[in-house]
Formats: sequence, structure tokens, C-alpha cells
Amino acid sequence: MESHKVEVRVRYEETDQMGVVYYANYFVYFEIGRTEFLRSMGLPYGELEKANVFLAVFDAYCKYKAPARYDDLLVIKTWVTRLKHARVEMSYEIWRDNETQLVVEGHTTLACLNEKGRPQLIPDNLMKLLKSVYTKGEI
Amino acid sequence: MESHKVEVRVRYEETDQMGVVYYANYFVYFEIGRTEFLRSMGLPYGELEKANVFLAVFDAYCKYKAPARYDDLLVIKTWVTRLKHARVEMSYEIWRDNETQLVVEGHTTLACLNEKGRPQLIPDNLMKLLKSVYTKGEI
Amino acid sequence: MESHKVEVRVRYEETDQMGVVYYANYFVYFEIGRTEFLRSMGLPYGELEKANVFLAVFDAYCKYKAPARYDDLLVIKTWVTRLKHARVEMSYEIWRDNETQLVVEGHTTLACLNEKGRPQLIPDNLMKLLKSVYTKGEI
Amino acid sequence: MESHKVEVRVRYEETDQMGVVYYANYFVYFEIGRTEFLRSMGLPYGELEKANVFLAVFDAYCKYKAPARYDDLLVIKTWVTRLKHARVEMSYEIWRDNETQLVVEGHTTLACLNEKGRPQLIPDNLMKLLKSVYTKGEI
Repeated sequence: MESHKVEVRVRYEETDQMGVVYYANYFVYFEIGRTEFLRSMGLPYGELEKANVFLAVFDAYCKYKAPARYDDLLVIKTWVTRLKHARVEMSYEIWRDNETQLVVEGHTTLACLNEKGRPQLIPDNLMKLLKSVYTKGEI
Repeated sequence: MESHKVEVRVRYEETDQMGVVYYANYFVYFEIGRTEFLRSMGLPYGELEKANVFLAVFDAYCKYKAPARYDDLLVIKTWVTRLKHARVEMSYEIWRDNETQLVVEGHTTLACLNEKGRPQLIPDNLMKLLKSVYTKGEI
Repeated sequence: MESHKVEVRVRYEETDQMGVVYYANYFVYFEIGRTEFLRSMGLPYGELEKANVFLAVFDAYCKYKAPARYDDLLVIKTWVTRLKHARVEMSYEIWRDNETQLVVEGHTTLACLNEKGRPQLIPDNLMKLLKSVYTKGEI
Repeated sequence: MESHKVEVRVRYEETDQMGVVYYANYFVYFEIGRTEFLRSMGLPYGELEKANVFLAVFDAYCKYKAPARYDDLLVIKTWVTRLKHARVEMSYEIWRDNETQLVVEGHTTLACLNEKGRPQLIPDNLMKLLKSVYTKGEI
């Protein structure tokens, strides 16, 4: 499976008084992971929305393995772990210390919606790209 | 001048590793102050947007006097300090410890925009309410 | 099972350009749910930290059922769904429209840590309270 | 006056239902500006805190000129505009569209505090660096 990597540096605002990244912020990092994944495939998410294709989160999970701290340079890895006609699951790992320490792992299922918020099939251009990085089997 | 009061409790997410509320979050509290101020006058901001009246921030200032911490119960005071045909300035104080300790003070100037983001006059229903709480002079 | 209810109003800052609450923010609401749950049992979380008891999130899950929008008055329901010697799982539902529309459901597992971030047993005073609201069976 | 530039891409989470960056988030960008400014001078802010030097915000101002939107690649410019023995003012401009459109401008005054939150003189190593980029006059 191909995964995509992007770096993000922890902002002061993202820490809490425990001195670590607040737990909800990892879901923001997950979004950065999938955004840059799509961009790297040549299809920025903003263009999808302009074509009335919205990827709404259906469910989200995160398991916390080790804390990330202020100014850490994190690596977000993103890849496709499930692919259906109107949904795609992306999985994530976030690492620190030059990818020697796993910080969190998780996944999100995204549902493809139209401009009215109704489910629609993943459009051909996006599906073609997702299939090209998804090797687990036919959908 | 009439001021409006609303309480807000500091969320864990709003703290940073210095153990205090992150400085940008006070602007979120300011928005809660003006939102509840409008609601108390019988004109929830959501209804303004439905009528294509948008109050966009033109400028914002905050002076930090004492830190607020996790779980503090804050009081936000909001009042109108300047009123023009297409702009209104609201000022804020945020207090803790039963209003004995001033945390921050600041202000925001709001510009009235239409749905295309162009300036427009403050509509009559809103202007009437703002004048009723603004005693500094005629606009 | 006893559940605890607390209301929260959606802030403008919590919406995104899709016009709905951004998906990561529900985890902030979950935290408000468990914070107020603990407070309602007479044990504010801040007092736990002062006694060097930290509840760190071990994992977190959220399933999105219907969008919440700006200014919605949400009800967060929180209850204990698993209880171990050093961990507790809390589950959540968030409702809108006077509890007629389920917005999200999810859970978080919290691990009990000491001031050095090492696991420790849930202290007696907290365990007693958690058992009193947990009826699924012995731990 | 020397200014420092750093790029930041607008996150989905940073937008609001008006379809633009929420106004408080520019203060987060300002912090990124000054953080990277310090890093570029060879003194990461994290090292200051390890030496018990804290730069707390004394006041903050932002003027909004044009909206930034999702996925915009912004340029944050930061420079020193006032320098005193225990305080420093940094000013900021944020630009989009290859620095052709000014989005916001603002400033923050930072007070130098010790680990107990008491004012202290800016330490020599930091003062030397700040003077090297400050050309307005002697402090």
C-alpha cells in the first residue's frame, strides 16, 4: 500500500496544560494528512468542493500511543484502507523524532456527499486516483 | 452605558502548556459576549445572517491583565462603545473570581456586510436595538 | 445506567465552511460532557490534577449521524460503559432539537496517570464514584 | 527593518460558516510568525522556556483587510517594531496570492516573564538578537 507523508510542526495553541498536544487536535492533523494526500495525487480537495463533491466524515478513531509536545516536527502518514462506491476509509499514523516514535494511529471514514448533503457515488476522477493507491482488493 | 453579562467556563482545550488560556481564545470569548448580547436584545445573530446581514470583524484588540486558568468561571461583559451607519464597536471585559479580578479587556469593530461581502448600512431593526443601549451620543 | 446531561451552544468558531460543526470539535464537547459528569458527582477534574491524578485519553471514537450548526443548543449525554482498575471508558451522545435528533455518538477510554505520565490505579475516591454510576457488572 | 517570512496553508478547521478564516485564528498565525522568526535567528522559543524565559502576550491587535480562504497559501511577515528592557513589540502582515493581497496586519506586545509569571528583563542572548533586527533606535 502506498502511503503519503507530510510534516507538521506542533503549534503552541495546540498544547494544553498537561504540556502535550490536546487530544482532539490529532483529528486536525489527520485532515492535513488526507488533504495533502489528495493534493499529491493531483486533486486538491478544494477542487472537489467546487465540483459539488464533499467528503464528510462518517466516523473517526484515534489511539494515543505517546504524547507530542510543543514544536515537535511530526510526520503524518496517510493511506487508503477501505474503498467502497460512496465511501473511503483513510488510515493515519503520526510519528515524531524522525519517525522513531509513534504518537498516534487512527482512521476516518469519509462519505461522499453532494451539495445538498445527500450521499452520492465517488466521482470517476477521484475513484480512479483512490484505486491507484489502494491495493487491498477490488471494490 | 448598559452592559451585558454572560458566563463561560474555561475548557481544557483552551489552555496551553503555560497553564493558562491561550491568548487567541479570548477573541472567541468576545464573540460569545456579542452573540449573547444580541440574543438578549431579541435579535440572535443567526437571524441576521438569514436576512443577509453579516457582521464581519474590521479590527480587534485585547489587553491581557491576568491569566485565566482551566475551569475558571469567567464573566464576559459586552457593551457598545461606538456606533456608525455601517459599523459598530463593541467593548469587552472578562472577569474571574466573582468579578473581582479583571482578566482581559478589549474591543472589536464590526462592519455590516451583505451576502456578497460588500458594506451595507446596519439594518433598521438592528440599529434601533444598538441605539437603545448606546448612550454616548448621536450617530 | 445513569447518564449525565449538559447543554452546550455551538460557537461560530466551531463551524467550518461546510456550514456545520467541524468534526474534531465533537471531541471537545465529549470532554465537556465528562468534565461536567465528574463535577456533578462532586469531584471536579481540576481537583484530581491537584492530587496528581491525570486522566489521559487512551483512545477516542466518534460516529457522525447528523450535522450540528451554528447556535444549535446541544445536549451532551455522558455515562460510564467500561470500568477497570486503571482505565475507564465513557460513552457519549450529542443531541439537538430538544433531544429529538441524534448528532453524534462516541466514546473515549481514559487511562489514569500520575504526574510523571506513568499509569496508576484509579484512586479510591474516584473509583467509588465511578462504581456508583456503573451498573454493568463488577470490575 | 528586517522582516522574516514564513508560509502557512489555511486548514479546513480554521474556516467558519462565512467561508473565510475565523478572525481569532490570525493570532495563531501571528504566533507562528514570531516562533519562526526566533528560530531563524537561532533561538527557538522552546529553548527560552527551558531557560525559564517566557514571552507572554501583553496586548494584541489585528486589522482585517481581505478574507483568507480554505487552502490559501499565506505568507506571514514578522518584524520588531518596539524594543524595551522587558518588552518587545512584533508587527505582522499576512499576505495571500503571492504577496499581492494583504489579508491582515497587526501587532503583539510580548512581556518577558520568569517561571513564576513575574516580569524579568529580556535575557542578554535574546536581547542581542532582537537588537540586531531592530533599527528604529536605541532602547
